[in-house]
Amino acid sequence: MAEAESIIYLDHAATSWPKPPEVIEAVVRAMEQDAANPGRGSHQMAVRASRVLFDTRKSLAKLFRIHNPNDIAFALNTTMALNMAIKGLLQPGDHVIATAIEHNSVRRPLEYLKRALSVEVTYVELGATGEMNVKQLERSIQAKTKLVVVNHSSNLLGSIIDIAAIGEITRKRGIKLLVDAAQTAGLVDIDVEAMGIDMLAFPGHKGLLGPQGTGGLYIHPDVELMPLMHGGTGSQSESVEQPTVRPDRYEAGTQNTPGIAGLKAGIQHVLHETIQKIHTREWMLTQRLMEGLSAVNGVRILGPALGRSRTGIVSFIIDGADPSETAFILDQHYKIAVRSGFHCTPLAHGTAGTLETGAVRASVGCFTTESEVDTLINAVKEIKQHYS
Amino acid sequence: MAEAESIIYLDHAATSWPKPPEVIEAVVRAMEQDAANPGRGSHQMAVRASRVLFDTRKSLAKLFRIHNPNDIAFALNTTMALNMAIKGLLQPGDHVIATAIEHNSVRRPLEYLKRALSVEVTYVELGATGEMNVKQLERSIQAKTKLVVVNHSSNLLGSIIDIAAIGEITRKRGIKLLVDAAQTAGLVDIDVEAMGIDMLAFPGHKGLLGPQGTGGLYIHPDVELMPLMHGGTGSQSESVEQPTVRPDRYEAGTQNTPGIAGLKAGIQHVLHETIQKIHTREWMLTQRLMEGLSAVNGVRILGPALGRSRTGIVSFIIDGADPSETAFILDQHYKIAVRSGFHCTPLAHGTAGTLETGAVRASVGCFTTESEVDTLINAVKEIKQHYS
Repeated sequence: MAEAESIIYLDHAATSWPKPPEVIEAVVRAMEQDAANPGRGSHQMAVRASRVLFDTRKSLAKLFRIHNPNDIAFALNTTMALNMAIKGLLQPGDHVIATAIEHNSVRRPLEYLKRALSVEVTYVELGATGEMNVKQLERSIQAKTKLVVVNHSSNLLGSIIDIAAIGEITRKRGIKLLVDAAQTAGLVDIDVEAMGIDMLAFPGHKGLLGPQGTGGLYIHPDVELMPLMHGGTGSQSESVEQPTVRPDRYEAGTQNTPGIAGLKAGIQHVLHETIQKIHTREWMLTQRLMEGLSAVNGVRILGPALGRSRTGIVSFIIDGADPSETAFILDQHYKIAVRSGFHCTPLAHGTAGTLETGAVRASVGCFTTESEVDTLINAVKEIKQHYS
Repeated sequence: MAEAESIIYLDHAATSWPKPPEVIEAVVRAMEQDAANPGRGSHQMAVRASRVLFDTRKSLAKLFRIHNPNDIAFALNTTMALNMAIKGLLQPGDHVIATAIEHNSVRRPLEYLKRALSVEVTYVELGATGEMNVKQLERSIQAKTKLVVVNHSSNLLGSIIDIAAIGEITRKRGIKLLVDAAQTAGLVDIDVEAMGIDMLAFPGHKGLLGPQGTGGLYIHPDVELMPLMHGGTGSQSESVEQPTVRPDRYEAGTQNTPGIAGLKAGIQHVLHETIQKIHTREWMLTQRLMEGLSAVNGVRILGPALGRSRTGIVSFIIDGADPSETAFILDQHYKIAVRSGFHCTPLAHGTAGTLETGAVRASVGCFTTESEVDTLINAVKEIKQHYS
């Protein structure tokens, strides 16, 4: 891994890297020993493959405090999980509330349903830092509001939304709550019961440290979705309808057994480290990065102010410098991997007032060091000098 | 891999095993070096991840003779690819023709659209061996027929459908042709242009020897589908609609980069061996298995007769023996992995007349040996004696 080793990787909000060695080992072990087709045979290797899936479900249930592991369905990615939830629940005439920091993985399905099913959508405005006044969301509720979809943390701004406060409101009103945990699963504490979460969409390859190609959706037992995918489940084969039994109902076709085996190892790593420690460490690194960047004249940092809670994301703009050019120089000259552009969230850029310019996003992960953060700060200083 | 090594694995129709060592190596290399988020950044590791996806598309295009690799969209599995095609194309009032050997991954989406959109479905009857008279399919065409969906090879019977003959009819009539290549991709020659295929759904983890969690859909440039998944694509982020550019339009969210890297290595293995050699070798093994099994009194073999074309699948029933018990004994006593039950295709069991009993399915793969086939034959002899 000569080439990869010398990189300072600060693009954890896109995908975490490197993965813990035990994640890669678990993927290899599954491919070598266990990757028969889970649930599609009773021979020993197929049974071992089913066990891989179930054990991973159990680890996820432990992490998110989910009663029944079978209420978790695996998916290719968070986008698929969000599509399963949104398209599986909403019907013509329903009203749904989302926020003005949603990712395109929420906005585009909602805008599609607006056109296709005349679903009504309200995007609740937030402050420019991406922090939310829950009262404002409450005021948007209508009699026909069926669903609230909320990004737990903006993938641009790093702000953390108070899910429990929203859950209290939705539970009282009998409205379903879907949380997009793309930036928080494995990084910020999530307790589906305590927070009143009805559906939780999560990636496997970000904070949970698993391989790409994994993710899933928790579906509260009281929530019934029309499956996004119909097909073989290895159960009730003779029925023309999708089985009602979970997780089969929401998992048609062969699952990503090796990826899911790797995901389990990633979750074990998180459970061992504890969310508390991971979150605190990432927060310290963001504060260090923000302090360093604010000392550079003409650098504007997006999202919550210093000292306030945020995930490992620090987006910024250098006065007079094009963000994609900055990212390009960081990559080519400094071997620092960050992401520029619109980060699939024009909504959050609208909220932050950066819809014209885009921004540079640096995001730390659980293996990021203080010295890597300092290297980025110094690189930005040099780039800024170059542009002054 | 002590436990796995001693197994005689004859469940290749469910998933191929073992994988060539270079497939596992490619997965590991991608996770260690290349698995940034493809298309989601311009830094070097993200560019390498995009390259992994594009190179795999190019290999698939070479294998299936597809002009433009960007007409291939990756999917979690064949079921997802079939759902993308069927739900993305059909509209209220459309008529669709399928066959009486379809897998539940085709039948269940069609039955869902029957209920939800009043789509009309005709299942063309086949002979008990799963072989097809194309004339009969032609007679089912109506003015409003929009789509023909055909299983290239039945996952129960092993019969191979003459796709080119169907393609000639559908092309003449302006009807779209969707082929389910779950049992043929990498095992039987497929030329989308010569065969008149408009959409080809294929698994990555069966004949193509890639990891589970991979597969895809080829979509002819003239076919326009409503995407099954809406979300971020890393392109045209500012648009509320799914981009029209391919493959982005049909690939929302983070793809399974390591799995797709492994898939490329699997396809390379197939291209190097050649489909012709793989298919001939598998056919010889099935003929050997069929000869051996027919010599056992009271064993009935499903599908095409000896000497006729078939894929690596040989399903059978032992008089007086319950198929699941037979599979259990084969697994526990002989360490032979086969699959019993209904194989997610009650339609094909209806065609074969085994809807009451189910069957035992043995399926060979490119690493299966003659001696493994002989071991199965001898085991069946012993089991039959036990039941006599």
